[in-house]
Parts: sequence; structure tokens; C-alpha cells
Amino acid sequence: MTQKLRQAPELNIQKWLNSDEDLSLEKLRGKVVAVFAFQMLCPGCVEHSIPQARRVHSMFSGDDLVVLGLHTVFEHHDGMKENSLKAFMHEYRIEFPVGIDTPSGDDKDPIPKTMRDYSMNGTPTIILIDRQGRLRKHKTGHEDDLTLGAELMALMKEEATSLVDITEENQGGVCTIKDGGTS
Amino acid sequence: MTQKLRQAPELNIQKWLNSDEDLSLEKLRGKVVAVFAFQMLCPGCVEHSIPQARRVHSMFSGDDLVVLGLHTVFEHHDGMKENSLKAFMHEYRIEFPVGIDTPSGDDKDPIPKTMRDYSMNGTPTIILIDRQGRLRKHKTGHEDDLTLGAELMALMKEEATSLVDITEENQGGVCTIKDGGTS
Amino acid sequence: MTQKLRQAPELNIQKWLNSDEDLSLEKLRGKVVAVFAFQMLCPGCVEHSIPQARRVHSMFSGDDLVVLGLHTVFEHHDGMKENSLKAFMHEYRIEFPVGIDTPSGDDKDPIPKTMRDYSMNGTPTIILIDRQGRLRKHKTGHEDDLTLGAELMALMKEEATSLVDITEENQGGVCTIKDGGTS
Amino acid sequence: MTQKLRQAPELNIQKWLNSDEDLSLEKLRGKVVAVFAFQMLCPGCVEHSIPQARRVHSMFSGDDLVVLGLHTVFEHHDGMKENSLKAFMHEYRIEFPVGIDTPSGDDKDPIPKTMRDYSMNGTPTIILIDRQGRLRKHKTGHEDDLTLGAELMALMKEEATSLVDITEENQGGVCTIKDGGTS
Repeated sequence: MTQKLRQAPELNIQKWLNSDEDLSLEKLRGKVVAVFAFQMLCPGCVEHSIPQARRVHSMFSGDDLVVLGLHTVFEHHDGMKENSLKAFMHEYRIEFPVGIDTPSGDDKDPIPKTMRDYSMNGTPTIILIDRQGRLRKHKTGHEDDLTLGAELMALMKEEATSLVDITEENQGGVCTIKDGGTS
Repeated sequence: MTQKLRQAPELNIQKWLNSDEDLSLEKLRGKVVAVFAFQMLCPGCVEHSIPQARRVHSMFSGDDLVVLGLHTVFEHHDGMKENSLKAFMHEYRIEFPVGIDTPSGDDKDPIPKTMRDYSMNGTPTIILIDRQGRLRKHKTGHEDDLTLGAELMALMKEEATSLVDITEENQGGVCTIKDGGTS
Repeated sequence: MTQKLRQAPELNIQKWLNSDEDLSLEKLRGKVVAVFAFQMLCPGCVEHSIPQARRVHSMFSGDDLVVLGLHTVFEHHDGMKENSLKAFMHEYRIEFPVGIDTPSGDDKDPIPKTMRDYSMNGTPTIILIDRQGRLRKHKTGHEDDLTLGAELMALMKEEATSLVDITEENQGGVCTIKDGGTS
Repeated sequence: MTQKLRQAPELNIQKWLNSDEDLSLEKLRGKVVAVFAFQMLCPGCVEHSIPQARRVHSMFSGDDLVVLGLHTVFEHHDGMKENSLKAFMHEYRIEFPVGIDTPSGDDKDPIPKTMRDYSMNGTPTIILIDRQGRLRKHKTGHEDDLTLGAELMALMKEEATSLVDITEENQGGVCTIKDGGTS
């Protein structure tokens, strides 16, 4: 069985924090990229996803792998602006780059652009992109460490094409988009 | 041994959320009052203190006991304004009244007024006040549930005077005031 | 409303460990008694009940309260004999007295005597007995610390008669008796 | 840098449980083997190692990987005999094969044979063996899931020789051999 892998959509970022330069999937080609999409006031993100992203960052980030945070605000926009996010990142000791997902620009559409382009269902969402820039995992909710460690290693060991594994599942404690989201 | 119990300083609140009326210790005289002082971006508060306050609220609040949150912002003031706090309270399902501690009014003093009046060291802080309005517990950091459950019941069973127990300890995961705080 | 409180059945113990003397509810009259019934190979007991019993013991035991373990083996009898229990108690640092519930003496009846006299459903079970020797709580499964701390304090504050609160609930992770138990 | 990898010593097993046949590293050549050495009454094993072994078994075991338990009793021998182990395995739902490490045969030597051959320091210990039967990891204490998932995947992806990574660390909650062990 062969399966056609699709390229991951480029990230659409309003501003990068914790990074001296503007990052892009294009620039990171050749490395495995682990993107943790979150909202700073999403309980499931704070309890599970952010600590996991910090573990992955401290354990694997380097020449082979990059960890990125993606702040995909789709609700309570007024309560999660840049100032609040910066304070959050300071208090939760987030040291990897975090991109603020570009707002839709339309007051009636609460979903930011990268979130829209990836058809994310809510937060937390984990996205894995391989060395060739292809989307290899897309999961809404939390992934257990044993599985994620194995998946990251499998991608780091890769040089060539292999099969895609896109999973879309939802779980408890997840902030999902309902009714188009609310601000 | 007899020990003189001191009255708990009145709360100095800029605005009450989750309450139809302005609350005060004066108005609550006759009930045990459990005050959970927190900052919405303090990791120890989010992980331990807020969930504990919710448990105490659901289990004990009624004719004998009231649970109050106190938002004592002493750092990152710009990131924890009312809009952000409201979103936080919605996401973390806080249903008890929360008072926003009144800012000092002095740009050089980051410590809000109630926090100053109680000489709090940081967040989380737990304050217990007896039916007669006297300060009976003041602890910086987290208190375990077994101890807190026993202390609350002891105060609820009281009609008359008894000994004070003011403990001031600090622990890991606590946001403390250093260097006068920072905004 | 008045409610008639019944005396707690006396414990029927084959042998006491961690105690220089044979204990009995009769001898402990005047103190609150917290009995934690467990089996050493019951996962819910090991994860929740034993650690809670240790916390209660270290925090409250003294002139007002006694913590007792009760080893109520109703399944896998060959795997939980005295030698194994002693090793378990050493490894899990159990310092309070533990009574081995007296076997039924009938090969066809796996339920030991105290367990039978209290009509326990399985392990863990928590039993609270007041200063007058009356049964005040009987719960199958785990009790949360906040509730238990409050209940223990309420009983310790008592001198006279008050209302009984017997709850019988079951939960996940509990070893229950089905089909008369198995050896 | 090249490093010579040494073959893992063969397991010396008195009896296999949960297996229709006697297993050996020899027979398992070609697969990655994850050995979780434990004692049924070691708290760190029960809390961390056994649940992790179950996760690894349910997630990865198959044509590429085998999970084995190894019951290395070096203390409280009378309390952890076969009957007790069987009851433990039933209650903790252990479905992978468990080998009982062969006792030394010398009353003065509490350390069983496989434990001796691998120079294990205590329990829990995790051992990883590659497809060619070579020892690739030896760690006393608990390994976090993220690291273990990555290591297992790295070994499963291997066909040929690679570098050895033998780590020997100890941590809190571990049962270690002191003074030659005690029975």
C-alpha cells in the first residue's frame, strides 16, 4: 500500500516570541518539527500539553528536532492577548519559540489563520512534520509520552519517504470549537 | 496558655465577580470564611489551590462556611487584568465569588491593598477566618486536604473562643514577592 | 429527627501486628477509631487506602484517635499469608497496628469473620467508630481526604450523641466480593 | 568513536508464568526484548514499573518487540513465593510472560542468579536487549515514558550494529541491595 503524503501548510504567524528570527516550516526543512498548538487559558493545555512540550524540548530539541508552540486563540480573545501570553510563558518557564497564530481579520470569524489552514478542532492539538515538510501526525487532545517518544524517534530516524499517520481524535479536557467559536 | 486572637483585616476589593453584591467580612460574620488568594498565572495556584478551593466550595459552602477567591496580582499586572481573569474563571469553572484585590494606586508599589494588609508573602495563600471574624490560619503555599478538612470542621463546630493557629510557611511552586515585586 | 445509633461489632482478630497487646474496640472506648480494611494485593488499597491511612496516622493519631489496619483476606488466601503481609507492611512502612481478620474456619466460606460481621462488600473499606463505640461511617472504596479530615475532626470534637452517617458506595478500582469470593 | 557491544547474559529462570513455553533470549533473537525486573512488594515497582511495562506491552509488543517481567526476589523471600506472585499478577492484570529468577541455592546468598549475572543493584531495573541479543540499556529505577518510547523505537528501527548506551543510575523509591540483601 502506498499513501500520498501531503505537505504541511505553512504556519501563518503574527509574531514570534522566544525567537530572534521569524521561523517557518520552509526554514526548518530537514528537521523534524513538533508543533504544540495551545491556548494559555485552556486547562487541558496547561495541565498536559505544555508540560509535555517542555519535556520534548529539553530531551530532543537540537539538530534533528525543533519544538514550536502555536498560540491558537479561538475564544476569550480579549483575555489572551500578547501581554498575558508573555506573562504566562514567563511563569510556566516556556523556553521554546511560540508563534502567535494570525487572527482571521474578520470580527465574525474567531478562528485564527493557521488553525483554519490545518482544520484544527480545538486545543491542545499536536502536529508532527517530517524532515521533508510533510504532515505526519495531527491529533486533537493529549498524546501519551510513550507513543509520542516513539513517533518522534521514528521521524528522526527517517531519511526517506514513509507512510503517513494522521489521527484525529478528541478526548476529555479539550477545548473544542463549537458554533464557530466565541470571542 | 491563653492567646489573644486578632480580628482579620477587612478585605479591600476593587470589584467582585460571581457575586450580585459587594461582600465583606463584616457581612459574613457568623460564618467561617475560607479565602484562597491567588494569581491566575501562578502555576502553584492553578495546579493546587484553585482545584482545592473548588472542592471546599462544593463540599462545605452553605450556612456555615463561605469560600472566597482573592485575586492578589503583584506581578505581570498587564497580563492579569479583569478580562483575562474572567476568561480564566470561565475556563476553570470557578463558581464561588472572587474579589479583585485593590491595586496600591502607586506605580512603584506592585502589592495590592488586601495583600499588604495581611502581609502575605505570595500566592497561593490560604486564610481562614472564624465565625467571630478572627484570623485563625494564614499559610503561604498549599495545605493538604486532610489538614484543611479537619481545620474547617473544627471552625464550623465552634461557637466560642479558641486558640489561634497562625502558620507562615513557604514551599516549592509558590510565587513569592521578591525585591518588592515587579509589574 | 433522631436516629438510633448502633454499636460497632467487636473486631474478631486472629493476630495483631505492630502492637504489643491485643487490641479491641472495648479497650479503645473513649477514642475515635478509624479502621482501614484492606488486602495487601488489592490495587485500590495499595494506591489509595494505605497511603491515606498512613497520612491519618501521622497527622491525627494520639489521645483522641487511633488508626487500625484490618487485613480482610477474601480471595487469593494462599498468596496473602502472614509472612507476605509482614513483608508488605515493612516495604510500605505501615507503623499503625494491623489486625489479621479471623478466617471463617469453613473452607467453603472465603469471607473472614469481622468482614462478615460488618457486612463489608470488599476492599478497601473505611470504618469510623465514635468515642462511645458506635458505628458512624462505613464506606466501600476510597474517601477523599477533605471529607475524611472533616469527619474525623467532627468525631473528635464530640462528647455526646449525634447523628449517624452510614454511607455504602462502591467505585472503580475496588476489590468486591462476587459469587461468594474465591480462594 | 566505536564501542564494543557485549552480549546480554542469558536469563536464568526457575519457572515461567503467563507463557506456554520456556522463553530465552536465544529464542527471541531477532526481536527487541524489554525486561522489567521487579519484586511484587517493591513500592516503586508497583507504582511505576509495572504500569509502564503494561503500557509498553499493550502498545509495542508484537513481531518486533517482546516484554518480559523478571521477578528478582532478593529480600523477604518467604513473603514473595510463587503463590503470592500469581495472586499479584492476577490482581495487577499482568498479561506478559514473567520469569521467576532462579534462587542462588545458597542460604547465605539472597541474590537470585539472573540478578547476579546482570549485576543489578535493586528493583525496579529495566533492561533493553537489541535484535542481535546485545545489552543496550541497563537502568536501576524508573525511566520516563518519553525516553523509553524513543529508545524502544530506535532499537526497533535498527537492523545493524550501533552504539551501546548502558546507564546505571539510582533514584528515590527504589529497593536496593544493601549489606548483601536480607531474606
